[in-house]
Amino acid sequence: MRDSHDIRLAVIPGDGIGGEVVAEGLKVLQALGLKVETTTYALGAAHYHATGEILAEETLAELRGYDAILLGAVGHPSVPPGVLERDLLLKLRFELDHYVNLRPVKLFPGVETPLGKARPDDIDMIVVREGTEGPYAGAGGVMRRGTSQEIATQESLNTAFGVERVVRYAFDKAMTRPRKKLTLVHKTNVLTYAGDLWARVVERVSAEYPEITTDYCHVDAASMFFVTDPKRFDVIVTDNLFGDILTDLGAAVAGGIGLAASGNVNPATPGSASWAPSMFEPVHGSAPDIAGQGKADPTAAILSVAMMLDHLGLTAEAARIEQAVAVDLVERQADWVSRTTREIGDDITARVTG
Amino acid sequence: MRDSHDIRLAVIPGDGIGGEVVAEGLKVLQALGLKVETTTYALGAAHYHATGEILAEETLAELRGYDAILLGAVGHPSVPPGVLERDLLLKLRFELDHYVNLRPVKLFPGVETPLGKARPDDIDMIVVREGTEGPYAGAGGVMRRGTSQEIATQESLNTAFGVERVVRYAFDKAMTRPRKKLTLVHKTNVLTYAGDLWARVVERVSAEYPEITTDYCHVDAASMFFVTDPKRFDVIVTDNLFGDILTDLGAAVAGGIGLAASGNVNPATPGSASWAPSMFEPVHGSAPDIAGQGKADPTAAILSVAMMLDHLGLTAEAARIEQAVAVDLVERQADWVSRTTREIGDDITARVTG
Ligand SMILES: CC(C)[C@H](C(=O)O)[C@@H](O)C(=O)O
Ligand SMILES: CC(C)[C@H](C(=O)O)[C@@H](O)C(=O)O
Repeated sequence: MRDSHDIRLAVIPGDGIGGEVVAEGLKVLQALGLKVETTTYALGAAHYHATGEILAEETLAELRGYDAILLGAVGHPSVPPGVLERDLLLKLRFELDHYVNLRPVKLFPGVETPLGKARPDDIDMIVVREGTEGPYAGAGGVMRRGTSQEIATQESLNTAFGVERVVRYAFDKAMTRPRKKLTLVHKTNVLTYAGDLWARVVERVSAEYPEITTDYCHVDAASMFFVTDPKRFDVIVTDNLFGDILTDLGAAVAGGIGLAASGNVNPATPGSASWAPSMFEPVHGSAPDIAGQGKADPTAAILSVAMMLDHLGLTAEAARIEQAVAVDLVERQADWVSRTTREIGDDITARVTG
Repeated sequence: MRDSHDIRLAVIPGDGIGGEVVAEGLKVLQALGLKVETTTYALGAAHYHATGEILAEETLAELRGYDAILLGAVGHPSVPPGVLERDLLLKLRFELDHYVNLRPVKLFPGVETPLGKARPDDIDMIVVREGTEGPYAGAGGVMRRGTSQEIATQESLNTAFGVERVVRYAFDKAMTRPRKKLTLVHKTNVLTYAGDLWARVVERVSAEYPEITTDYCHVDAASMFFVTDPKRFDVIVTDNLFGDILTDLGAAVAGGIGLAASGNVNPATPGSASWAPSMFEPVHGSAPDIAGQGKADPTAAILSVAMMLDHLGLTAEAARIEQAVAVDLVERQADWVSRTTREIGDDITARVTG
């Protein structure tokens, strides 16, 4: 990589607990002995209120120059719904072509799950959520707003190009897993146009992966099986909106949003024309109600750092973090004391170095 | 009502286990001492294979003449996905203007839930799902099918008329509940056009219901809370597709799809121009894998009969069935023996009459 650094990283702490959890993620990262150069970008609700700006074109251009981006969380009730989501978070996903939204759903040993009978082996899947199409395209409109004749439309846009590339990624991911199983989740019986495209692409690509067992599940049934039979899933590939819903549900069954990491991934080869930095972030939001109190669990942010390292090819370092988190989670249960955000970060850092 | 009958009922047993569970629902209904006249319509996969017909216009016209419709389940793997759904189930919902899809999510005492710590008081909500709009409108299309340039669109259509009527129904429903709380579930931060319409309508109508506490929850967060904190919900009002997903999830947390009843409701006053019969059905499907073996749980079908009676104003009779089911569910747990579909129906019938 460029300079004499292993990683040139852009950091967007964001709002609320974002900064607190990102600080712990960076602490763990710095303990690995890699050469990391970080540059912080103050984006989010506070920046918007102060400057009226959400994401300037020059900032976006600068962000393209990093190896990766680490984001805490953005959002505050003072900003109308949709504004930061559309013009910051989704804009980054679309502009940097993060067409894979990678969300592991994994129950670590020692972690309490709301599912009374689930054991860690029962919940171990990866959701490959499409990140740049579907109902997230922003297409739609409104007519006769505010009258009794108002209509509002919202359009899901799906392309063979967009579906095929994420489906291929999911098949490749399934090849790395012992069970080698891929499930398409959609709603083909109602969303017949989009569903038909997804189903045909999966069927066609599956011919190139004879080792992979492929099946299909409607999204309504899948949400049921996340609770009653999560073991049936290994790798899931799904549409942007279904992936959004299922991965929050997945976070809940795997012990909570405080542990769920995600990657907004552009899988192109670095240096190629379609490459842009990938962005890693905890699935949780900015939680303004507990901000500044040291109450947030930084584990999801720390696991997001591990996902980032894995993506950058630093797999041994990623594994060290995951291992440290796994040990911490087991000991959390055995030896329950309430720790602050910083204490959890310190403990995981100590396990990484020690 | 017409003739000397209390209820003139059209019955669509359907495919797979549909006929088995409907038979038990009718057995319980007949035990109440009401004057019920039933007419059976053989619709579904078998009928389609035999005749090439899914729902003839004359059949639809006849169905309009009943007080209500009871449906078992339709569907078989031999019919391509979407065909029976669109041309039978959804067609009935659209033609008979079933704009309220009513789905209680309630954990009965004695019923095992996958949520280790949930008690019956924690799960007691009603999902009011819109039934005739949104992504179910069937709007969309495909271009350059089968090529690398294919695009497929799927459009969600939302009208002030359609949203307002279901929102009003939900507020009225919330007024009948002790907690008087209504939650709008949507994804206003991404589906900004449709979400904005829903949010504005809920806000406007809420002014007429000062006793009701209204709040909002994104669908991804809602799916998480169904598992981690179902108690926060009392009445939910939501879009057709979100309601589809959440109610299957709801069935799972409330003890399984074998217990979940639903009503496709047209709330107009009988005799008025917009009235048409409402249709009641278990949420589960036709389960061809266990059909004909007496293994299906008829409880959801029986509870669907209770919902139907309630809708027809026969509230005392509805309560008798619900009470009988509640007792049966408690005793099931205490005294576990595996019973056939018919035995469960017999036992609940005995409790209704006894
Ligand atoms: C904040 C929101 C736009 C976002 C999404 O819907 O994708 C979030 O829920 C997520 O899952 O990352
Ligand atoms: C069978 C299907 C069309 C239907 C739906 O999506 O509404 C079903 O899942 C339901 O919930 O009643």
